[in-house]
Amino acid sequence: MKDDKQAPVPASTTEGQPIRCKAAVSRRAGEPLVIEDIIVAPPKPREARIRIICSSLCHSDITLRNLQDPPAIFPRILGHEATGVVESVGKDVTEVTKGDVVIPVILPECGECIDCKSTKSNRCTNFPFKVSPWMPRDGTTRFTGQNGEIIYHFLFISSFSEYTVVDIANLIKIDPEIPPDRACLLGCGVSTGVGAAWRTAGVEPGSTVAIFGLGSIGLAVAEGARLCGATRIIGKKFGVTDFVNAGECGGKPVGQVIIEITDGGADYCFECVGMASLVHEAYASCRKGWGKTIVLGVDKPGARINLSSYEVLHDGKSLMGSLFGGLKPKSHVPILLKRYMDKELQLDKFVTHEVEFKDINKAFDLLSKGECLRCVIWMDK
Amino acid sequence: MKDDKQAPVPASTTEGQPIRCKAAVSRRAGEPLVIEDIIVAPPKPREARIRIICSSLCHSDITLRNLQDPPAIFPRILGHEATGVVESVGKDVTEVTKGDVVIPVILPECGECIDCKSTKSNRCTNFPFKVSPWMPRDGTTRFTGQNGEIIYHFLFISSFSEYTVVDIANLIKIDPEIPPDRACLLGCGVSTGVGAAWRTAGVEPGSTVAIFGLGSIGLAVAEGARLCGATRIIGKKFGVTDFVNAGECGGKPVGQVIIEITDGGADYCFECVGMASLVHEAYASCRKGWGKTIVLGVDKPGARINLSSYEVLHDGKSLMGSLFGGLKPKSHVPILLKRYMDKELQLDKFVTHEVEFKDINKAFDLLSKGECLRCVIWMDK
Repeated sequence: MKDDKQAPVPASTTEGQPIRCKAAVSRRAGEPLVIEDIIVAPPKPREARIRIICSSLCHSDITLRNLQDPPAIFPRILGHEATGVVESVGKDVTEVTKGDVVIPVILPECGECIDCKSTKSNRCTNFPFKVSPWMPRDGTTRFTGQNGEIIYHFLFISSFSEYTVVDIANLIKIDPEIPPDRACLLGCGVSTGVGAAWRTAGVEPGSTVAIFGLGSIGLAVAEGARLCGATRIIGKKFGVTDFVNAGECGGKPVGQVIIEITDGGADYCFECVGMASLVHEAYASCRKGWGKTIVLGVDKPGARINLSSYEVLHDGKSLMGSLFGGLKPKSHVPILLKRYMDKELQLDKFVTHEVEFKDINKAFDLLSKGECLRCVIWMDK
Repeated sequence: MKDDKQAPVPASTTEGQPIRCKAAVSRRAGEPLVIEDIIVAPPKPREARIRIICSSLCHSDITLRNLQDPPAIFPRILGHEATGVVESVGKDVTEVTKGDVVIPVILPECGECIDCKSTKSNRCTNFPFKVSPWMPRDGTTRFTGQNGEIIYHFLFISSFSEYTVVDIANLIKIDPEIPPDRACLLGCGVSTGVGAAWRTAGVEPGSTVAIFGLGSIGLAVAEGARLCGATRIIGKKFGVTDFVNAGECGGKPVGQVIIEITDGGADYCFECVGMASLVHEAYASCRKGWGKTIVLGVDKPGARINLSSYEVLHDGKSLMGSLFGGLKPKSHVPILLKRYMDKELQLDKFVTHEVEFKDINKAFDLLSKGECLRCVIWMDK
C-alpha cells in the first residue's frame, strides 16, 4: 500500500500532509467497486483525518452504488458504518486528538443550533442530514484520484478507504476497549433500529411490538424493544417472540392476523423495509386508542403514504418517522455502547460475515442477496 | 306542551311511564326540522331519562340533517351538545339520580374495558363511538312518533327533544351552579378543541401553535393552547396572537408563510376544517424535528391523507388524530368545567346567539352560513 515516492507522503510520516492510500471507489452505477490509489487531503478546521480499522456494509451503500440518478454520483467513496483512529486533526478541534478511537455517525450534531440544544430534536440545523457528495462545512471534497480527478464523499463519512476525513459534527470518540467490529454498527443501521424503539416510539415495559421487515434495522428494533421491556415482539429471528409470515396467513392481511394474535393490535408497529404500502399495513396493525406506527424504511423518491382521513381521526393512532432512531448522536450513541459493554445490548449477532478489504465486493454480493445481516470489512486483514 | 290525555302520561306525573313531549324531528335530507309530538320510553337498565334545558348546535347536526346517505337516517332527532336534568333512571343506575343536572357527551366511557382503564386511550371498547341510530347498549330506540313510527337516535344523545334517554356511559353529572348554556358546550366541539391541545398534542409552555380552520373547534384549540401556556397561536379571532389569511400570502403557500413567521414551523398544527388536503398543509407547516400535526376535522367518507414517504421519515414530525380531544370524558370534562368556574377556561365567547326551541331552524341557518359560533337553543324560553 505504501511506497517511497515523493509527496504526497505516506501516512506514517507526518500530519498536515496529503496521504496516498487505497480506497474502494464506486465508479459506475451497478458495477463492483474498484480498489485504487487516492489522495486524502489533510483535515480542514473542525475536521479530523481518520485511519479506518473496519466498516460494516449497510443497504444504503448498495442503493447508492446501484442508483443511476441523483443523489447517486460517481466516482464516489461509499461506506458509512466504521471504526477508526484519529491520524490528525484540523484547526480548532478539541474534542478528539491523534490516536483516539472514533466512530463516525451519519447524523451531524453541531451542538450549537436550536435543534441540537433541544431535547426534542436530533436534526441539526447547521448541518442537516443529506446524501451529499461533499464535506458538510465547506462543501468541497478531501479526495482526489489519478490526475487530480475529484472523488466524491458519501454521507459525510466515506469509510471504504484506508483514510478519510470526517467533520467533528459527525464524530464520536469511543472507549478503545470496545471491539471495533461492534462499535462500527452504531454509526447507522443498528442505532436507527434500537433508537426507534427507545427514543422515537418510547416503547414501554409490557408492551407489544410488531416489526415489518427483519433485516438488521428491524432486528435492531427488536433488540431496542427488548431493552425497553416489551413482552411481545412480533416478527422473526433473534429477539423476536412471535412470527407472522405474510405467506402463511391463509389469505388474511397480515394486519388482521396481528390484530387477532394481539387482541386488538400492537402497541407499536415499525416499518423497516422502505415500502410506503407497508406503512398502511403497519398502521392498520397497531392498536386503536394509542398505537404508534414508526417509519424507518427509505422508500424511492416520490413514494407517498396514503391513509384514510376517517381512520386517522377516529382511531387515535400516531404516525411518525424516525431518522437515526431519534437518537441525539453524541448523547445517546455512547449510552448504547456502554450498554453493549455491560452485556445488556446485544450486538454480536448482527455480524454474520467478515471479509478483507480486497474482497469488499463479496460483502456487496452477500447483502444484495439477503444472505447476511452485517458483513464487516477489515482494512488490515 | 303538556295536556290531559290518557297514557302516555305527561312528565309531571310519574317515573316508569312513557312521556309525550315535543321534539324537533329531522324528516328529510336538507329540510328544516319539524317540531312534533313524540313518545319517549322510560329508561332501560343503565340509562337515564333527561329533561333537556338547552342544547348548542354543532356542525355535525347540520351535516347529518343535510346528508342523503348513511350514516344519515330519517326520521331522526339530532342534537348532541346539551344540559339537562335527570327525570328518572333505569335499573342498576347509581351514578345519577332524579334531579341531578347532567351533560351528555358524545364519547361513551364504560369505565370497565381495557381502554377505559388505560390512561392512554379514550376509545371505549364496550361502546365504541359511532353515528348510530340506536341506543348503545341494546340497539333499540326510545322514541316513537305518530302511529308507532320509529324515530332514530343521534350520537347516543338526541337532545333536540324536551326529553331524551341517554346511557350512563355517555352521561356526566355536573355542578348545578354551572350555567347550562355553558356546560352544554363541553359535550362535543369545545371539549374536542381544548382537549386536542391539552391531551392529544400536549402543548407545552412557550410553544407555537398554528390552527387551520377557526370555527368553534379551532377557537377551542386556541383556548386550550392558551391554557397550556403557548406563547404564539397563529390563526384568527379571540385568543389568537397572529393571523394568516390564505388570500393574503402573495401567492405563497400558507405553510411557507407559517414557516417564515415562526422561523422554522409551528410546534403544533391543528386541522379543524375536515379537509384531507389541509392536513398536508398543516403537516408542511409544522417544525421539522418535533412538530406534531393533529387532525380534528371530519372529512367526507373515503377521503385520503397523502404524505411524502421521504418527508415522514426525514422530518421527524408526527401525525395524530384526536377524537373528542383525546379526553377521557368522565375524568377530564369535570376538570374543564372546574376551570371554567375558576375563570381560567373561557367559554362565554363561544356563545354568539341563542334562540327558543320553536326557532331551532334559525340556529341551523345561522351556523350553515357561518354567521355564528355556537347558538344555544333553549327548551323553555
